[in-house]
Amino acid sequence: MFITFEGLDFSGKSTQATLLVDALNRTSRSASPPASHVHFIRETGGTPISERVRTILLDRQALEMAEATELFLFAASRAQLVRQLIMPALTLGTVVVCDRFADSTTAYQGYGRGIELETVERINNLATGGLRPDLTLLIDIPLEEMDLRARAAGTVEDRMERSGRAFYARVRNGYLTMAAAEPGRFRVIDGTMPVARVHDEVRAAVGAALATTIPSGLP
Amino acid sequence: MFITFEGLDFSGKSTQATLLVDALNRTSRSASPPASHVHFIRETGGTPISERVRTILLDRQALEMAEATELFLFAASRAQLVRQLIMPALTLGTVVVCDRFADSTTAYQGYGRGIELETVERINNLATGGLRPDLTLLIDIPLEEMDLRARAAGTVEDRMERSGRAFYARVRNGYLTMAAAEPGRFRVIDGTMPVARVHDEVRAAVGAALATTIPSGLP
Repeated sequence: MFITFEGLDFSGKSTQATLLVDALNRTSRSASPPASHVHFIRETGGTPISERVRTILLDRQALEMAEATELFLFAASRAQLVRQLIMPALTLGTVVVCDRFADSTTAYQGYGRGIELETVERINNLATGGLRPDLTLLIDIPLEEMDLRARAAGTVEDRMERSGRAFYARVRNGYLTMAAAEPGRFRVIDGTMPVARVHDEVRAAVGAALATTIPSGLP
Repeated sequence: MFITFEGLDFSGKSTQATLLVDALNRTSRSASPPASHVHFIRETGGTPISERVRTILLDRQALEMAEATELFLFAASRAQLVRQLIMPALTLGTVVVCDRFADSTTAYQGYGRGIELETVERINNLATGGLRPDLTLLIDIPLEEMDLRARAAGTVEDRMERSGRAFYARVRNGYLTMAAAEPGRFRVIDGTMPVARVHDEVRAAVGAALATTIPSGLP
Protein backbone atom coordinates (compact mmCIF):
# COMPACT_ATOMS: atom_id res chain seq x y z
CA MET A 1 0.00 0.00 0.00
CA PHE A 2 1.50 3.27 -1.21
CA ILE A 3 -0.04 6.44 0.24
CA THR A 4 0.91 9.98 -0.73
CA PHE A 5 0.05 13.38 0.71
CA GLU A 6 -0.30 16.35 -1.58
CA GLY A 7 -1.33 19.98 -1.23
CA LEU A 8 -0.16 23.56 -1.18
CA ASP A 9 2.57 24.72 1.16
CA PHE A 10 1.06 25.35 4.63
CA SER A 11 -1.85 23.00 3.91
CA GLY A 12 -0.77 20.94 6.94
CA LYS A 13 -0.04 17.87 4.85
CA SER A 14 3.32 17.17 6.51
CA THR A 15 1.72 17.27 9.95
CA GLN A 16 -1.00 14.94 8.72
CA ALA A 17 1.50 12.55 7.16
CA THR A 18 3.39 12.34 10.47
CA LEU A 19 0.17 11.74 12.43
CA LEU A 20 -0.90 9.00 10.02
CA VAL A 21 2.46 7.26 10.30
CA ASP A 22 2.19 7.35 14.12
CA ALA A 23 -1.32 5.94 13.91
CA LEU A 24 -0.28 3.17 11.52
CA ASN A 25 2.67 2.24 13.71
CA ARG A 26 0.28 1.78 16.67
CA THR A 27 -1.91 -0.44 14.52
CA SER A 28 0.99 -2.58 13.37
CA ARG A 29 2.38 -2.95 16.92
CA SER A 30 -0.96 -4.13 18.25
CA ALA A 31 -1.49 -6.57 15.39
CA SER A 32 -0.91 -10.26 16.05
CA PRO A 33 1.52 -11.16 14.63
CA PRO A 34 2.92 -7.60 14.55
CA ALA A 35 2.66 -6.21 11.04
CA SER A 36 5.64 -4.94 9.11
CA HIS A 37 6.65 -1.39 9.81
CA VAL A 38 5.43 1.68 8.06
CA HIS A 39 7.93 3.51 5.95
CA PHE A 40 7.75 7.30 5.97
CA ILE A 41 9.47 9.18 3.17
CA ARG A 42 9.86 12.85 2.66
CA GLU A 43 10.75 14.00 -0.82
CA THR A 44 13.53 14.84 -1.40
CA GLY A 45 15.97 12.76 0.58
CA GLY A 46 16.15 9.21 1.84
CA THR A 47 18.95 7.79 -0.30
CA PRO A 48 22.59 8.91 -0.50
CA ILE A 49 21.96 10.28 -4.00
CA SER A 50 18.74 12.10 -3.16
CA GLU A 51 20.40 13.59 -0.07
CA ARG A 52 23.15 15.01 -2.29
CA VAL A 53 20.62 16.31 -4.79
CA ARG A 54 18.75 17.83 -1.88
CA THR A 55 21.75 19.93 -0.82
CA ILE A 56 21.86 21.39 -4.34
CA LEU A 57 18.12 22.13 -4.27
CA LEU A 58 18.44 23.84 -0.87
CA ASP A 59 21.05 26.16 -2.42
CA ARG A 60 18.98 26.90 -5.49
CA GLN A 61 18.58 30.62 -4.87
CA ALA A 62 22.30 31.20 -4.43
CA LEU A 63 22.99 29.08 -7.49
CA GLU A 64 20.46 30.93 -9.70
CA MET A 65 18.82 27.65 -10.62
CA ALA A 66 16.67 27.53 -13.75
CA GLU A 67 13.15 26.10 -13.47
CA ALA A 68 13.94 23.20 -15.79
CA THR A 69 17.04 22.36 -13.73
CA GLU A 70 14.91 22.23 -10.60
CA LEU A 71 12.37 19.95 -12.22
CA PHE A 72 15.05 17.52 -13.38
CA LEU A 73 16.73 17.45 -9.97
CA PHE A 74 13.41 16.58 -8.32
CA ALA A 75 12.90 13.88 -10.95
CA ALA A 76 16.41 12.50 -10.38
CA SER A 77 15.88 12.32 -6.65
CA ARG A 78 12.49 10.64 -7.10
CA ALA A 79 13.81 8.11 -9.63
CA GLN A 80 16.42 6.96 -7.13
CA LEU A 81 14.00 6.97 -4.19
CA VAL A 82 11.50 4.78 -6.05
CA ARG A 83 14.04 2.15 -7.07
CA GLN A 84 16.19 2.09 -3.96
CA LEU A 85 13.59 2.54 -1.25
CA ILE A 86 9.91 2.64 -2.17
CA MET A 87 9.71 -0.37 -4.51
CA PRO A 88 11.72 -2.71 -2.23
CA ALA A 89 9.61 -1.63 0.77
CA LEU A 90 6.34 -2.22 -1.10
CA THR A 91 7.59 -5.63 -2.23
CA LEU A 92 8.09 -6.54 1.44
CA GLY A 93 4.49 -5.58 2.14
CA THR A 94 5.39 -2.39 4.02
CA VAL A 95 2.99 0.53 3.95
CA VAL A 96 4.84 3.47 2.42
CA VAL A 97 3.70 7.02 3.22
CA CYS A 98 5.21 9.79 1.12
CA ASP A 99 5.02 13.52 1.77
CA ARG A 100 4.72 14.76 -1.84
CA PHE A 101 5.29 12.61 -4.90
CA ALA A 102 4.94 12.91 -8.69
CA ASP A 103 1.62 14.81 -8.45
CA SER A 104 3.57 17.72 -6.94
CA THR A 105 5.55 18.03 -10.15
CA THR A 106 2.37 17.97 -12.23
CA ALA A 107 0.75 20.59 -10.01
CA TYR A 108 3.70 22.94 -9.52
CA GLN A 109 5.70 22.60 -12.73
CA GLY A 110 2.90 21.58 -15.07
CA TYR A 111 -0.17 23.57 -13.99
CA GLY A 112 1.84 26.19 -12.06
CA ARG A 113 4.77 26.96 -14.35
CA GLY A 114 3.03 25.99 -17.55
CA ILE A 115 5.36 23.20 -18.69
CA GLU A 116 3.40 21.06 -21.14
CA LEU A 117 1.43 18.44 -19.20
CA GLU A 118 2.33 15.66 -21.66
CA THR A 119 6.01 16.39 -21.01
CA VAL A 120 5.55 16.42 -17.22
CA GLU A 121 3.57 13.18 -17.45
CA ARG A 122 6.35 11.43 -19.36
CA ILE A 123 9.02 12.71 -16.98
CA ASN A 124 6.96 11.50 -14.02
CA ASN A 125 6.44 8.08 -15.59
CA LEU A 126 10.14 7.66 -16.24
CA ALA A 127 11.01 8.83 -12.72
CA THR A 128 8.48 6.62 -10.97
CA GLY A 129 9.00 3.62 -13.25
CA GLY A 130 5.22 3.63 -13.65
CA LEU A 131 4.57 3.35 -9.91
CA ARG A 132 1.39 5.16 -8.86
CA PRO A 133 0.08 5.72 -5.34
CA ASP A 134 -2.84 3.53 -4.26
CA LEU A 135 -4.24 6.45 -2.32
CA THR A 136 -3.49 10.17 -2.53
CA LEU A 137 -4.73 12.47 0.20
CA LEU A 138 -5.06 16.00 -1.11
CA ILE A 139 -5.18 18.40 1.82
CA ASP A 140 -6.90 21.36 0.25
CA ILE A 141 -6.84 24.94 1.51
CA PRO A 142 -7.86 28.18 -0.24
CA LEU A 143 -5.15 30.71 -1.06
CA GLU A 144 -6.38 33.12 1.63
CA GLU A 145 -5.69 30.43 4.24
CA MET A 146 -2.24 29.77 2.81
CA ASP A 147 -1.46 33.49 2.98
CA LEU A 148 -2.59 33.73 6.59
CA ARG A 149 -0.61 30.70 7.68
CA ALA A 150 2.52 31.80 5.82
CA ARG A 151 2.32 35.20 7.48
CA ALA A 152 1.70 33.65 10.90
CA ALA A 153 4.76 31.46 10.42
CA GLY A 154 6.79 34.56 9.53
CA THR A 155 8.37 32.56 6.73
CA VAL A 156 11.20 34.22 4.93
CA GLU A 157 10.15 34.57 1.32
CA ASP A 158 11.97 32.00 -0.75
CA ARG A 159 11.99 31.44 -4.48
CA MET A 160 8.67 29.59 -4.36
CA GLU A 161 7.01 32.21 -2.22
CA ARG A 162 8.00 34.92 -4.68
CA SER A 163 6.04 33.14 -7.39
CA GLY A 164 2.92 35.07 -6.52
CA ARG A 165 -0.79 34.47 -6.07
CA ALA A 166 -1.63 33.59 -9.65
CA PHE A 167 0.95 30.81 -9.59
CA TYR A 168 -0.54 29.23 -6.46
CA ALA A 169 -4.05 29.61 -7.84
CA ARG A 170 -2.96 27.55 -10.86
CA VAL A 171 -1.31 24.96 -8.61
CA ARG A 172 -4.40 24.55 -6.45
CA ASN A 173 -6.63 24.39 -9.49
CA GLY A 174 -4.29 21.77 -10.95
CA TYR A 175 -4.54 19.60 -7.86
CA LEU A 176 -8.34 19.80 -7.88
CA THR A 177 -8.45 18.98 -11.60
CA MET A 178 -6.25 15.91 -11.05
CA ALA A 179 -8.37 14.78 -8.11
CA ALA A 180 -11.55 15.11 -10.17
CA ALA A 181 -9.98 13.09 -13.00
CA GLU A 182 -8.95 10.22 -10.69
CA PRO A 183 -11.64 9.95 -8.01
CA GLY A 184 -10.60 6.36 -7.25
CA ARG A 185 -7.13 7.39 -6.14
CA PHE A 186 -7.65 10.88 -4.68
CA ARG A 187 -9.43 11.91 -1.50
CA VAL A 188 -9.82 15.67 -1.14
CA ILE A 189 -9.85 16.71 2.51
CA ASP A 190 -10.70 20.21 3.71
CA GLY A 191 -7.46 21.43 5.28
CA THR A 192 -9.10 24.41 7.00
CA MET A 193 -10.64 22.10 9.62
CA PRO A 194 -8.87 21.60 12.98
CA VAL A 195 -5.88 19.21 12.85
CA ALA A 196 -7.76 16.49 14.76
CA ARG A 197 -10.71 16.61 12.37
CA VAL A 198 -8.45 16.40 9.31
CA HIS A 199 -6.65 13.49 10.97
CA ASP A 200 -10.01 11.73 11.51
CA GLU A 201 -10.78 12.01 7.80
CA VAL A 202 -7.31 10.80 6.86
CA ARG A 203 -7.70 7.77 9.15
CA ALA A 204 -11.11 7.03 7.73
CA ALA A 205 -9.84 7.14 4.15
CA VAL A 206 -6.76 5.02 4.86
CA GLY A 207 -8.74 2.62 7.08
CA ALA A 208 -11.24 2.06 4.28
CA ALA A 209 -8.42 1.39 1.82
CA LEU A 210 -6.68 -1.02 4.20
CA ALA A 211 -10.00 -2.52 5.35
CA THR A 212 -9.10 -1.90 8.98
CA THR A 213 -9.75 0.57 11.76
CA ILE A 214 -6.90 2.92 12.50
CA PRO A 215 -6.50 4.37 16.01
CA SER A 216 -5.75 8.06 16.39
CA GLY A 217 -2.18 9.15 15.95
CA LEU A 218 -2.70 12.18 18.15
CA PRO A 219 -0.64 12.22 21.35
CA MET B 1 27.09 29.59 -34.18
CA PHE B 2 26.60 26.57 -31.96
CA ILE B 3 28.73 23.51 -32.83
CA THR B 4 28.55 20.14 -31.09
CA PHE B 5 30.69 17.02 -31.25
CA GLU B 6 29.10 13.62 -30.89
CA GLY B 7 30.24 10.03 -31.12
CA LEU B 8 31.07 6.89 -29.21
CA ASP B 9 33.59 6.87 -26.40
CA PHE B 10 37.11 6.69 -27.89
CA SER B 11 35.92 8.13 -31.21
CA GLY B 12 38.41 10.96 -30.72
CA LYS B 13 35.70 13.63 -30.57
CA SER B 14 37.14 15.38 -27.50
CA THR B 15 40.55 15.66 -29.19
CA GLN B 16 38.84 17.02 -32.30
CA ALA B 17 36.78 19.50 -30.29
CA THR B 18 39.96 20.83 -28.63
CA LEU B 19 41.76 21.13 -31.99
CA LEU B 20 38.82 22.98 -33.51
CA VAL B 21 38.70 25.42 -30.61
CA ASP B 22 42.44 26.11 -31.01
CA ALA B 23 41.95 26.64 -34.74
CA LEU B 24 38.99 28.99 -34.22
CA ASN B 25 40.93 30.98 -31.64
CA ARG B 26 43.71 31.53 -34.18
CA THR B 27 41.13 32.72 -36.72
CA SER B 28 39.54 35.15 -34.31
CA ARG B 29 42.91 36.56 -33.17
CA SER B 30 43.96 37.27 -36.74
CA ALA B 31 40.62 38.84 -37.66
CA SER B 32 40.42 42.60 -37.92
CA PRO B 33 38.83 43.70 -35.69
CA PRO B 34 39.56 40.61 -33.54
CA ALA B 35 36.43 38.48 -33.33
CA SER B 36 34.83 37.50 -30.07
CA HIS B 37 36.31 34.49 -28.34
CA VAL B 38 35.29 30.92 -28.81
CA HIS B 39 33.62 29.25 -25.89
CA PHE B 40 34.46 25.60 -25.28
CA ILE B 41 32.12 23.60 -23.09
CA ARG B 42 32.41 20.08 -21.89
CA GLU B 43 29.27 18.42 -20.63
CA THR B 44 28.85 18.09 -17.72
CA GLY B 45 30.32 21.04 -15.87
CA GLY B 46 30.76 24.72 -16.51
CA THR B 47 28.35 26.23 -13.99
CA PRO B 48 28.38 25.92 -10.19
CA ILE B 49 25.26 23.73 -10.36
CA SER B 50 26.50 21.47 -13.15
CA GLU B 51 29.83 21.06 -11.34
CA ARG B 52 27.97 19.85 -8.27
CA VAL B 53 25.79 17.53 -10.34
CA ARG B 54 28.98 16.29 -11.98
CA THR B 55 30.46 15.17 -8.65
CA ILE B 56 27.34 13.06 -8.07
CA LEU B 57 27.59 11.55 -11.57
CA LEU B 58 31.26 10.71 -11.05
CA ASP B 59 30.27 8.73 -7.96
CA ARG B 60 27.44 6.94 -9.69
CA GLN B 61 28.85 3.44 -9.32
CA ALA B 62 29.38 3.79 -5.57
CA LEU B 63 25.93 5.31 -5.23
CA GLU B 64 24.19 2.53 -7.21
CA MET B 65 22.59 5.09 -9.46
CA ALA B 66 19.52 4.08 -11.45
CA GLU B 67 19.52 4.75 -15.21
CA ALA B 68 16.61 7.18 -14.94
CA THR B 69 18.42 9.08 -12.18
CA GLU B 70 21.46 9.42 -14.40
CA LEU B 71 19.39 10.69 -17.32
CA PHE B 72 17.71 13.35 -15.16
CA LEU B 73 21.02 14.51 -13.67
CA PHE B 74 22.46 14.97 -17.17
CA ALA B 75 19.31 16.86 -18.13
CA ALA B 76 19.54 19.07 -15.02
CA SER B 77 23.15 19.91 -15.75
CA ARG B 78 22.38 20.67 -19.38
CA ALA B 79 19.36 22.83 -18.53
CA GLN B 80 21.53 25.03 -16.34
CA LEU B 81 24.41 25.13 -18.82
CA VAL B 82 22.13 26.27 -21.65
CA ARG B 83 20.56 29.10 -19.69
CA GLN B 84 23.56 30.31 -17.73
CA LEU B 85 26.33 29.89 -20.29
CA ILE B 86 25.48 28.80 -23.82
CA MET B 87 22.54 31.12 -24.56
CA PRO B 88 24.25 34.26 -23.20
CA ALA B 89 27.43 33.41 -25.16
CA LEU B 90 25.48 32.88 -28.39
CA THR B 91 23.65 36.15 -27.85
CA LEU B 92 27.03 37.92 -27.71
CA GLY B 93 27.95 36.35 -31.04
CA THR B 94 30.47 33.93 -29.57
CA VAL B 95 31.05 30.60 -31.29
CA VAL B 96 30.17 27.86 -28.78
CA VAL B 97 31.73 24.42 -29.17
CA CYS B 98 30.28 21.67 -27.02
CA ASP B 99 31.73 18.19 -26.43
CA ARG B 100 28.46 16.19 -26.32
CA PHE B 101 25.00 17.72 -26.07
CA ALA B 102 21.38 16.55 -26.20
CA ASP B 103 22.05 14.07 -29.04
CA SER B 104 24.14 12.04 -26.58
CA THR B 105 21.05 11.49 -24.44
CA THR B 106 19.04 10.42 -27.48
CA ALA B 107 21.78 8.03 -28.61
CA TYR B 108 22.77 6.54 -25.22
CA GLN B 109 19.54 6.61 -23.22
CA GLY B 110 17.06 6.49 -26.09
CA TYR B 111 18.55 4.14 -28.69
CA GLY B 112 21.00 2.49 -26.26
CA ARG B 113 18.90 1.92 -23.14
CA GLY B 114 15.57 1.79 -24.92
CA ILE B 115 13.86 4.70 -23.19
CA GLU B 116 11.00 5.80 -25.46
CA LEU B 117 12.35 8.28 -28.03
CA GLU B 118 9.34 10.59 -27.65
CA THR B 119 10.10 10.84 -23.92
CA VAL B 120 13.80 11.51 -24.50
CA GLU B 121 12.91 14.12 -27.12
CA ARG B 122 10.62 15.98 -24.70
CA ILE B 123 13.21 15.86 -21.92
CA ASN B 124 15.85 17.19 -24.31
CA ASN B 125 13.57 19.99 -25.50
CA LEU B 126 12.82 21.07 -21.95
CA ALA B 127 16.51 20.88 -20.98
CA THR B 128 17.76 22.83 -24.00
CA GLY B 129 14.88 25.30 -24.05
CA GLY B 130 14.52 24.36 -27.72
CA LEU B 131 18.11 25.30 -28.57
CA ARG B 132 19.56 23.11 -31.31
CA PRO B 133 23.11 23.04 -32.63
CA ASP B 134 23.72 24.72 -35.99
CA LEU B 135 26.25 22.04 -36.82
CA THR B 136 26.86 18.63 -35.28
CA LEU B 137 30.04 16.74 -36.11
CA LEU B 138 29.51 13.03 -35.62
CA ILE B 139 32.91 11.34 -35.35
CA ASP B 140 32.00 7.81 -36.32
CA ILE B 141 34.03 4.69 -35.56
CA PRO B 142 33.04 1.02 -35.82
CA LEU B 143 32.77 -0.99 -32.59
CA GLU B 144 35.92 -2.96 -33.37
CA GLU B 145 37.88 0.29 -33.41
CA MET B 146 36.31 1.37 -30.10
CA ASP B 147 37.28 -1.97 -28.55
CA LEU B 148 40.89 -1.68 -29.76
CA ARG B 149 41.26 1.89 -28.51
CA ALA B 150 39.66 1.10 -25.15
CA ARG B 151 42.03 -1.83 -24.68
CA ALA B 152 45.04 0.25 -25.77
CA ALA B 153 44.06 2.89 -23.22
CA GLY B 154 43.86 0.19 -20.55
CA THR B 155 40.67 1.83 -19.32
CA VAL B 156 39.24 0.48 -16.13
CA GLU B 157 35.78 -0.82 -16.95
CA ASP B 158 33.22 1.57 -15.60
CA ARG B 159 29.46 1.29 -15.56
CA MET B 160 29.19 2.39 -19.19
CA GLU B 161 31.87 -0.01 -20.37
CA ARG B 162 30.09 -2.89 -18.70
CA SER B 163 27.04 -2.21 -20.88
CA GLY B 164 28.32 -4.55 -23.56
CA ARG B 165 28.66 -4.68 -27.32
CA ALA B 166 24.98 -4.79 -28.18
CA PHE B 167 24.41 -1.58 -26.26
CA TYR B 168 27.13 0.28 -28.16
CA ALA B 169 25.90 -1.13 -31.45
CA ARG B 170 22.49 0.42 -30.71
CA VAL B 171 24.12 3.74 -29.74
CA ARG B 172 26.16 3.89 -32.96
CA ASN B 173 23.16 2.91 -35.03
CA GLY B 174 21.15 5.60 -33.24
CA TYR B 175 23.69 8.27 -34.07
CA LEU B 176 23.75 7.25 -37.73
CA THR B 177 19.94 7.23 -37.86
CA MET B 178 19.79 10.73 -36.39
CA ALA B 179 22.44 11.96 -38.84
CA ALA B 180 20.51 10.52 -41.78
CA ALA B 181 17.30 12.18 -40.56
CA GLU B 182 18.93 15.63 -40.26
CA PRO B 183 21.51 15.88 -43.05
CA GLY B 184 21.46 19.68 -42.86
CA ARG B 185 22.75 19.70 -39.28
CA PHE B 186 24.94 16.58 -39.10
CA ARG B 187 28.28 15.89 -40.75
CA VAL B 188 29.43 12.31 -40.33
CA ILE B 189 33.22 12.09 -40.29
CA ASP B 190 35.16 8.82 -40.43
CA GLY B 191 36.95 8.69 -37.07
CA THR B 192 39.30 5.86 -38.12
CA MET B 193 41.34 8.31 -40.20
CA PRO B 194 44.49 9.88 -38.73
CA VAL B 195 43.83 12.78 -36.32
CA ALA B 196 45.13 15.37 -38.82
CA ARG B 197 42.81 14.10 -41.57
CA VAL B 198 39.77 14.13 -39.28
CA HIS B 199 40.74 17.66 -38.23
CA ASP B 200 40.89 18.72 -41.91
CA GLU B 201 37.35 17.48 -42.44
CA VAL B 202 36.15 19.20 -39.26
CA ARG B 203 37.73 22.49 -40.39
CA ALA B 204 36.20 22.13 -43.83
CA ALA B 205 32.72 21.54 -42.40
CA VAL B 206 32.95 24.39 -39.87
CA GLY B 207 34.60 26.69 -42.42
CA ALA B 208 31.75 26.10 -44.85
CA ALA B 209 29.19 26.84 -42.15
CA LEU B 210 30.99 30.01 -41.06
CA ALA B 211 31.79 30.96 -44.68
CA THR B 212 35.47 31.36 -43.82
CA THR B 213 38.75 29.46 -44.04
CA ILE B 214 39.96 27.99 -40.78
CA PRO B 215 43.70 27.47 -40.23
CA SER B 216 44.87 24.20 -38.72
CA GLY B 217 44.64 23.82 -34.96
CA LEU B 218 47.49 21.30 -34.91
CA PRO B 219 50.60 22.40 -33.01
